[in-house]
Amino acid sequence: MDGDDTPRLADASEADQIGRLLHDFNTEFETPSPGADVLSERLAVLLAGKSMFAILAGRPAFAVALVSVRPSVWYSGRVGLLDELYVEPNRRSEGTGSAILRLLSDHARAVGIDAIEINVDEGDVDAQRFYERHGYSSIEPETNERAFYYYQELRVPD
Amino acid sequence: MDGDDTPRLADASEADQIGRLLHDFNTEFETPSPGADVLSERLAVLLAGKSMFAILAGRPAFAVALVSVRPSVWYSGRVGLLDELYVEPNRRSEGTGSAILRLLSDHARAVGIDAIEINVDEGDVDAQRFYERHGYSSIEPETNERAFYYYQELRVPD
Repeated sequence: MDGDDTPRLADASEADQIGRLLHDFNTEFETPSPGADVLSERLAVLLAGKSMFAILAGRPAFAVALVSVRPSVWYSGRVGLLDELYVEPNRRSEGTGSAILRLLSDHARAVGIDAIEINVDEGDVDAQRFYERHGYSSIEPETNERAFYYYQELRVPD
Repeated sequence: MDGDDTPRLADASEADQIGRLLHDFNTEFETPSPGADVLSERLAVLLAGKSMFAILAGRPAFAVALVSVRPSVWYSGRVGLLDELYVEPNRRSEGTGSAILRLLSDHARAVGIDAIEINVDEGDVDAQRFYERHGYSSIEPETNERAFYYYQELRVPD
């Protein structure tokens, strides 16, 4: 990676680039998306607050990580959830994902985040290995077992 | 359940009761806990904000649900994570857990939460059935598969 490709913390003014990448992500994996414009509008608001941040690589950006933050009673600090990590297909296997995870940890520590969480598809063994290589675990030490992610939508997304 | 046992939204002034129940929860399941006092102090602060709420049943309380809230780019509203749901051993199988989940959905809708998430242990089939009976799913419709919860602690909890 040259200098321009080093991951950086995104500014709210870059919401358009993030919205475009997240829309491309969902399109690639055939997941519904409200569209790049709706995503960009929401991101411009959310990134100006303290409960979401994003990391970008490239100008124009070819990779993004989106992290939402919540309080937790089990830590004195907060907890971050890596909602999305996407690298454009023609820029994979260059180490960008790893560099993004390193910046994610550094930034999280700097803003008082005590733990980072990720939900990884059961069948996506490559992603599981990737996160395990970077210090993430699916095994809770107390129970010595994994946990499944459950959810219920109360409102159908646009 | 009689009137006093109907679940209610907890007030920040009830942080002591919630801290005690969460500490008992972790003690029962042999999970580390910073202690009821530390939990209660954190809860008094967190429950006064907009990113956490709790539901209690009983006076004194014998059941608790703790929910943290985060923003999401995929919804116009926010997302709630059911961090903990605990009913004291001698008050189980009375329908309290179900009544709490109903209040959780109603309150979440009322405050603009569009989805509720829960991480359920892989081996806890009873809990999985309980949440599935109440409309929760572990299967993402797009991928038709489940997801595992991964995490990394950046700071060891007290």
